[in-house]
Amino acid sequence: MKQLFAALAIAAAAVPALAHEGHEHNAFSKPEDAVRYRQAAFSVMGTHFARIGQVVKGEKPFDKAAVQADVAVVEALAKLPFAAFPAGSDLSNSKAKPEVWKEAGKFKAGADKMQGEIAKLSTAAKSGDLNAIKVAFGGVGQSCKSCHDNFKNK
Amino acid sequence: MKQLFAALAIAAAAVPALAHEGHEHNAFSKPEDAVRYRQAAFSVMGTHFARIGQVVKGEKPFDKAAVQADVAVVEALAKLPFAAFPAGSDLSNSKAKPEVWKEAGKFKAGADKMQGEIAKLSTAAKSGDLNAIKVAFGGVGQSCKSCHDNFKNK
Repeated sequence: MKQLFAALAIAAAAVPALAHEGHEHNAFSKPEDAVRYRQAAFSVMGTHFARIGQVVKGEKPFDKAAVQADVAVVEALAKLPFAAFPAGSDLSNSKAKPEVWKEAGKFKAGADKMQGEIAKLSTAAKSGDLNAIKVAFGGVGQSCKSCHDNFKNK
Repeated sequence: MKQLFAALAIAAAAVPALAHEGHEHNAFSKPEDAVRYRQAAFSVMGTHFARIGQVVKGEKPFDKAAVQADVAVVEALAKLPFAAFPAGSDLSNSKAKPEVWKEAGKFKAGADKMQGEIAKLSTAAKSGDLNAIKVAFGGVGQSCKSCHDNFKNK
């Protein structure tokens, strides 16, 4: 038991900012934590999506395993940021437009659309057919752009 | 074909900062891109690890599915940041100590150790045994702290 508590103390020390449940539907205790989290998730996702883009545009040779790995990261991360737009997190360092909260249903539909397009990209990546990957990549990109146009300031 | 190019143009526009391969072992064209990427990956990982910590410390009720989902995110993200310490990315906004590059083998061993501990946490989470989760969480936390002590400035 003593060992367990020692391990927990060490573990706690290793995590500088512990998030505390605000209320049932908000896992972030402070709005700035939600902003940082969603921006970080979008950033990592964008890096891996851009790597697929380089292949699609012929800037990088097509390596099936590498594309599959990038798609897997995109797919895992795409689920995360949309849980991090609690009310009151429209902070000045956020590029989220007020429509995120005013048109929550439309925002949710956009997130779902993107995840559906990413699922298609995942299927295409598994097939290894570069043309199918190109088409599916375009579909994901359009879903990104559509949401950015409606919900994200430049 | 025209449609494909239109889709690609849209996709490219949706990704503000496209990473370009620097050289074979560095997927980041600019050191600051690598810093931003690794900090973002650690940040998202830390958020989900902290959520498991709340359960382990009894601050949040134990929900097996939620813990498994958090562990899955931790596991997916734990693989990412260590590919983002190219030479020359010891920038002033990075907390990485020079030892990251001077003792690259030890740093790699620390990263591998953490991933091994996370694999144990994943097994524990799948078992649904809260005591096993607590022990495995402590192991991951110790691997975090050990690396932070050696390789990260406060």
